[in-house]
Amino acid sequence: METKNIFTNLSPLDHRYYLANRELFDDLARYLSEDASIKYCIKAEAALLKSHLSIMEDGDENHPDVVALETRVTSEAVYQEEEKTQHNIRALVNVIKTKLPDDIKPLVHLGATSVDVLDTAASMRNRDVTRNVIIPLMLEVEELLISLARDNAATPQVGRTHGQHAVPITLGYAFAEYVSRFGKSIKELERLSGDLRGKLAGAVGAYNATSLIVSDPEELEKKYLDYLGLKPSDHSTQMVEPEYLLRLLLEMNTAFGVIANLADDLRHLQRSEINELREMFTSTQVGSSTMPQKRNPWNSEHVKSLWKAFAPRVMTFYMDQISEHQRDLSNSASARFVTDYITGFAAALNRMKKVLSTIHVEEEIIRKNITYTGDLVLAEAAYILISVCGEPDGHEKIRLATLECEKNSTSLAEELHKDDKIWKNLNDQLGKTIGVTAEAFFKNPELYRGLAVERTNKLVDEYGKLVDEIKEAL
Amino acid sequence: METKNIFTNLSPLDHRYYLANRELFDDLARYLSEDASIKYCIKAEAALLKSHLSIMEDGDENHPDVVALETRVTSEAVYQEEEKTQHNIRALVNVIKTKLPDDIKPLVHLGATSVDVLDTAASMRNRDVTRNVIIPLMLEVEELLISLARDNAATPQVGRTHGQHAVPITLGYAFAEYVSRFGKSIKELERLSGDLRGKLAGAVGAYNATSLIVSDPEELEKKYLDYLGLKPSDHSTQMVEPEYLLRLLLEMNTAFGVIANLADDLRHLQRSEINELREMFTSTQVGSSTMPQKRNPWNSEHVKSLWKAFAPRVMTFYMDQISEHQRDLSNSASARFVTDYITGFAAALNRMKKVLSTIHVEEEIIRKNITYTGDLVLAEAAYILISVCGEPDGHEKIRLATLECEKNSTSLAEELHKDDKIWKNLNDQLGKTIGVTAEAFFKNPELYRGLAVERTNKLVDEYGKLVDEIKEAL
Amino acid sequence: METKNIFTNLSPLDHRYYLANRELFDDLARYLSEDASIKYCIKAEAALLKSHLSIMEDGDENHPDVVALETRVTSEAVYQEEEKTQHNIRALVNVIKTKLPDDIKPLVHLGATSVDVLDTAASMRNRDVTRNVIIPLMLEVEELLISLARDNAATPQVGRTHGQHAVPITLGYAFAEYVSRFGKSIKELERLSGDLRGKLAGAVGAYNATSLIVSDPEELEKKYLDYLGLKPSDHSTQMVEPEYLLRLLLEMNTAFGVIANLADDLRHLQRSEINELREMFTSTQVGSSTMPQKRNPWNSEHVKSLWKAFAPRVMTFYMDQISEHQRDLSNSASARFVTDYITGFAAALNRMKKVLSTIHVEEEIIRKNITYTGDLVLAEAAYILISVCGEPDGHEKIRLATLECEKNSTSLAEELHKDDKIWKNLNDQLGKTIGVTAEAFFKNPELYRGLAVERTNKLVDEYGKLVDEIKEAL
Amino acid sequence: METKNIFTNLSPLDHRYYLANRELFDDLARYLSEDASIKYCIKAEAALLKSHLSIMEDGDENHPDVVALETRVTSEAVYQEEEKTQHNIRALVNVIKTKLPDDIKPLVHLGATSVDVLDTAASMRNRDVTRNVIIPLMLEVEELLISLARDNAATPQVGRTHGQHAVPITLGYAFAEYVSRFGKSIKELERLSGDLRGKLAGAVGAYNATSLIVSDPEELEKKYLDYLGLKPSDHSTQMVEPEYLLRLLLEMNTAFGVIANLADDLRHLQRSEINELREMFTSTQVGSSTMPQKRNPWNSEHVKSLWKAFAPRVMTFYMDQISEHQRDLSNSASARFVTDYITGFAAALNRMKKVLSTIHVEEEIIRKNITYTGDLVLAEAAYILISVCGEPDGHEKIRLATLECEKNSTSLAEELHKDDKIWKNLNDQLGKTIGVTAEAFFKNPELYRGLAVERTNKLVDEYGKLVDEIKEAL
Repeated sequence: METKNIFTNLSPLDHRYYLANRELFDDLARYLSEDASIKYCIKAEAALLKSHLSIMEDGDENHPDVVALETRVTSEAVYQEEEKTQHNIRALVNVIKTKLPDDIKPLVHLGATSVDVLDTAASMRNRDVTRNVIIPLMLEVEELLISLARDNAATPQVGRTHGQHAVPITLGYAFAEYVSRFGKSIKELERLSGDLRGKLAGAVGAYNATSLIVSDPEELEKKYLDYLGLKPSDHSTQMVEPEYLLRLLLEMNTAFGVIANLADDLRHLQRSEINELREMFTSTQVGSSTMPQKRNPWNSEHVKSLWKAFAPRVMTFYMDQISEHQRDLSNSASARFVTDYITGFAAALNRMKKVLSTIHVEEEIIRKNITYTGDLVLAEAAYILISVCGEPDGHEKIRLATLECEKNSTSLAEELHKDDKIWKNLNDQLGKTIGVTAEAFFKNPELYRGLAVERTNKLVDEYGKLVDEIKEAL
Repeated sequence: METKNIFTNLSPLDHRYYLANRELFDDLARYLSEDASIKYCIKAEAALLKSHLSIMEDGDENHPDVVALETRVTSEAVYQEEEKTQHNIRALVNVIKTKLPDDIKPLVHLGATSVDVLDTAASMRNRDVTRNVIIPLMLEVEELLISLARDNAATPQVGRTHGQHAVPITLGYAFAEYVSRFGKSIKELERLSGDLRGKLAGAVGAYNATSLIVSDPEELEKKYLDYLGLKPSDHSTQMVEPEYLLRLLLEMNTAFGVIANLADDLRHLQRSEINELREMFTSTQVGSSTMPQKRNPWNSEHVKSLWKAFAPRVMTFYMDQISEHQRDLSNSASARFVTDYITGFAAALNRMKKVLSTIHVEEEIIRKNITYTGDLVLAEAAYILISVCGEPDGHEKIRLATLECEKNSTSLAEELHKDDKIWKNLNDQLGKTIGVTAEAFFKNPELYRGLAVERTNKLVDEYGKLVDEIKEAL
Repeated sequence: METKNIFTNLSPLDHRYYLANRELFDDLARYLSEDASIKYCIKAEAALLKSHLSIMEDGDENHPDVVALETRVTSEAVYQEEEKTQHNIRALVNVIKTKLPDDIKPLVHLGATSVDVLDTAASMRNRDVTRNVIIPLMLEVEELLISLARDNAATPQVGRTHGQHAVPITLGYAFAEYVSRFGKSIKELERLSGDLRGKLAGAVGAYNATSLIVSDPEELEKKYLDYLGLKPSDHSTQMVEPEYLLRLLLEMNTAFGVIANLADDLRHLQRSEINELREMFTSTQVGSSTMPQKRNPWNSEHVKSLWKAFAPRVMTFYMDQISEHQRDLSNSASARFVTDYITGFAAALNRMKKVLSTIHVEEEIIRKNITYTGDLVLAEAAYILISVCGEPDGHEKIRLATLECEKNSTSLAEELHKDDKIWKNLNDQLGKTIGVTAEAFFKNPELYRGLAVERTNKLVDEYGKLVDEIKEAL
Repeated sequence: METKNIFTNLSPLDHRYYLANRELFDDLARYLSEDASIKYCIKAEAALLKSHLSIMEDGDENHPDVVALETRVTSEAVYQEEEKTQHNIRALVNVIKTKLPDDIKPLVHLGATSVDVLDTAASMRNRDVTRNVIIPLMLEVEELLISLARDNAATPQVGRTHGQHAVPITLGYAFAEYVSRFGKSIKELERLSGDLRGKLAGAVGAYNATSLIVSDPEELEKKYLDYLGLKPSDHSTQMVEPEYLLRLLLEMNTAFGVIANLADDLRHLQRSEINELREMFTSTQVGSSTMPQKRNPWNSEHVKSLWKAFAPRVMTFYMDQISEHQRDLSNSASARFVTDYITGFAAALNRMKKVLSTIHVEEEIIRKNITYTGDLVLAEAAYILISVCGEPDGHEKIRLATLECEKNSTSLAEELHKDDKIWKNLNDQLGKTIGVTAEAFFKNPELYRGLAVERTNKLVDEYGKLVDEIKEAL
């Protein structure tokens, strides 16, 4: 067993990010490490042996030596053999044979081409890591988002478009955005991870070899894949159709984009001048090696940065759709790095979980910021109200009023008050719809929040149910 | 109406590719041109007016001036107004008002923010262009693939892996790969294009404005979208959730990858030394400006090249997921180029349709190529057969035999014949499984085709039904 | 001459962005339109004719019919011929021949393969558009940056890291960043655009054809390219080495990234809560169709958005490096879209020029923002000063002091004053270095600006000179 | 020292590719591992200490405790401290202090912000790995290409365009393409790696902190960087200008594209039907786990596949240009993966070196393939020759002749012979230019090779000199 000082590893995933995500990465390693890769290939080879034994007259599909393969064959032994064969699966096959009685040896790998094992094993690994590690982690993030949305459903916050104060929402409604968008990705990933495929269709996918062994090669493939919980690829070349995995990875990248967007929102809301949220800072933590006062939103920045590092790799996934004729090997090395991608995504999820589970809401500041521009966040409301009351050019009228505010250093309410009729109309329409007086309304801009609270609660309930359903489905 | 010499346009889409795809691009222009963009916004504004009118006591949702808007408002007028407002939707609103009686004017755009119109219109356009142009074109390609697969279901062809002769398949089976992969994308696009969403939720998505107008803003949104055949976004900021469109575009790129792969296969099968297929060449066509004998697979190359030009743009689609807070405008210009992407994809589909509808199958050459390496394409078969008959190290044995063939300039059959027992075993097992003698088998390597024919027919039937279903669904 | 309503064009470049950049795009069209493409090919064919004529005994390299080709051959005629030949250069050659006397006809295109003309013409177009349009536009942007840096060299601004107030700089120093980064790209583009290459090396690059015509084919190539102001490719296949153009495009994308970064800075500095800069807003302009008070930084957002649309296309440029053997055509369509890329970059430059030429500096607000967090932006200064005076753990000491400030609602100066010795040390060291008292320093945090002014002036001078040099070189 | 079974690592770079490139990756680890990253930061911190000591009255810039830092500070200790500080450089500083006498402690990191150390260290690492590992490896590849070009300078090979036989070249000329393209990248990398920059300009780049310590902060920066062999960044924010590194990485990707192109050529030339080259295959190596006869070009495929995996990551490099204001952290994690990129590139170079050093040239087959289409590869020659002799429509004439060949199963020579005058003209012109008879020419199409040999030799000499120059410069 070759070991190595982790600080001499080359990929940050295997030193810095390993140390920062030790428990998670140990989990991932059960599916994504080279050791796991070989282990899953052994599972596949064992399933193939069982399939052969199950249809032989006196075959024992539970032959103890077959069952024991997973524990008896080591990655090291396979690698040592590969130095001779220069072919990884042939090496595995050779090692497996040394662990089996002579009468079973000829059945090893019989009828299979390497990729029948490799692609099948990869589908299992990607299915298992998605359903056992990635989705559970996503569900934790989703539940944190749901909590934040629910707890802050009625906390008034200014809505911002173009970085400018627009009209009020609530902080919960802002989190509900991510509940909804991220939740959909979880649902999609559950579906797609359950539809990865395996194959036992041989070197060019036409069941050539197995047709010389059994009368119903499709049945043999079915047996093989049943042991592993997979369905066969609709069509096979030497490989499973690439789009089953592609769609899973594209959806991961979609979810990655959602948390990158969330990360941007979180870090901007922590700007000195905005200051509405605050990432947890321990009392011994240092924000800057030189500026002692700094409290940087570095975890949110980190999530965004991981997205920059990994999102462009979808281009590799798309390029790997292309393989000439019944296959060329030019997607072999590249496909290995799917492992890095999933690991990077998992690290970002883990960091986002940390941020969300400790983020501090500066409720007082959030409330105060709503009136940062006085009552100008009600300019839209004023325009709507006077338009409803028959003003044909309401937008322009209010736009000019806001310019007056600027000139006269007045509030919008003061400007509107100058015309009694307008003010009365506003008052009447406000009474009829949201049931407040104009005076109360302009003093409390947070009343202009539309359905922010109701929508938040609705979405939170809906996605809470989804979380429960998916937990059950896994 | 400003016109322009098309040769002075800057994008190849608007000159060279327009001329090469005139009918198709005129179709696309109904959804994707700037004129179409404005027309769809008018549809949306009209639907909003109807919604308001439908709930007013004496409102007439079919008011003739509202109904006439689409024909009365021109792109030119809107652009002229935009020079003043510097805001496209405000410009549109101003122009619309000039076409309406005074009592309806205040209702124009009332309660909506620009994006309620723009995103809703974009969803309609993308839905319509996908279902009315892209999918029908894809179905034509799929049907051509089905025909090629069916017609060549039993045409023996050598399977190639790593560019090397591997074991036989049939040409139909090779086409069936694309029937299966491409067909799935059509199905996905049908689903995703039917699930694009609209909104009438206002500037920050919380129904602020409409809550000052009506008692049930969600109901007003529903009315508005019902006129347009859309459902509301699950959650809205200023924008519809970006992932509805994103997933549609990702799937288009998936389909694009499938035909790029097909294009690669087609062009390599036209290499001088392989020569199994041939793109149609008219008698006056010139292959090279200097080499008169050339017949280049330029249409297949063209499809691959368009893929190179457009596939990387998915990165833009992913980047456009990110918009700060309730939105920033940094996805506005970029999202406009979705138009270019869909056009590029359509051009590639059109070219692939042309290739497939005229491709010439050199059946004689295909058959001949199977035995290019003598009977070595049966090395796998030999290994399988002797292994089934109990040989523990069959692969190595045959590998050495193939080296002997090379040394002795013999056929594999000749080498195998040297051992009577082996030959008898082969013969027996072949009789038991595919029902031929060893002699016949080694003289006719195309017999080693597994289930190529059966699988082709099965897939062709299955996807033929899918095509019918989708045609019905559109 | 086929004309078309521009609103029916498909690419935004040929409608919306054309209208927004009419003058610029008309300039670009002289190099990048299809018409220009054909015109440049005619230039190349004419140069080839001249080369042949110049070495013929009684040839006249200035034959009037050859000189007149550019005006006599139209794009329309070439396109009409291409419908027959299905080959663009063969079509051009046929049309050219109709304009020449019989004795010259056989010399047309003689010895050339299509790509000798196409690649050479493309190099000329890309050279000319870069040097005649792109770089001049970049120089305008650079000069605006230089002005902004110079004019605001001493305007104190808080430096921000992680969106948090860090330590002071000056606004001019912030602009100087872009003077320096953008200036370097201009310099590189000047160099790279002057080193694009042409070829007259035939179908596979080995001068096969021309070696049957002249005794020194390299000399013939040199003549041909001299007429066009180009040097030959170091090695040729059918094509010029792709990296000459690749490096030019990569550098454009580098410059694009610089202005995208600038755009982000500009739009964030316009956030409601920061408000230090303001894009020009005309009195009739509308910020939002529904929120009359809005003044959005939409031009800066637009530049960022164009970057999102175009930057990922570098992946196409890299993929176009790959062409099989002496060439395959799979980079032909994709390379055409270089036109779109350059146009998109030009549009972004033009918009940035507009932003910079009208941006309003809110000097008062900028000054005020420095003390947004009181004197905490001097925490670093305090740490440095006490460390210099011998405090071994200065950073931690000041970090704890800032926590005290928070607890006691005191200023950092007040906390430091509590220890007379520290205060005296600070005072002494400040006197020795930047020559102010501690009291003045803590009351005027903008004094802590390091070399911001000196460095700004130095960079402004240096890049001002570069601008002059490049203007001269073009 | 934490060790780990390498088979439990997650990135293929740290298990599979490590084992396949052990010596190379151990070399890389000296610059790119986390251990190296910390070591280089220590070098930078030590240089800073020396700078301070060198200007102190009784300071000793060679203080033994400072000199010993590199060996006394371990990565493990730094990581342990980081668990407390949550800040990597603060952790390093704390550990360094424990190794120094009290009077030097206050000087540690004094005046520096983290990034003054991190960016400077990164520039050193990237410079050193490029100049000590990457370029030397590239030079080995270049020398192999030069050998292959020189040795096969006169080996006739058919030139291929669009996968079709075009006109002859030589195998050496085909390799010379890569000598020329790859050589240019080496030259560029030498230049760019020598121009990476460091900084000691503080938290926002304006030398704020150091201006409180010394009278000439730029001089202090210069001292610091002189110890490390770097020049200062032209302008600094918290960071060095990002484009110095960006351009280096873009050029690596350019070189990567060149070997990806080469890999494609090599693997296609190994197709069963072409068979002109052959990757080395050891006698025990297995080509396929099921097809014993297979000899796959898997090393060439591997290089192409690595390109697919790594080339798209340039998008990350471009995105990392963007950092808000004086910096945000969103390029911190992403920039760490530059390590993976360089490692992936090195692995591809190493594999290409292996391919080129053992590739087998099937000279006989190459020669034979030239006449695969009889003498049709001389169609261009025929067209040129008769055009030179005055035929106005030579191309069309020969195009029709090639159709006759097809119909009559004749050679082109036979068709041309039918017209005595034409044949005579051909003969005369051939005599005048390349000095052979028409008969000899059409029997030996390889004579139609233009300057393939001369150009190969010229390029080989030129780039051989470049290799020597660069070796000297490193």
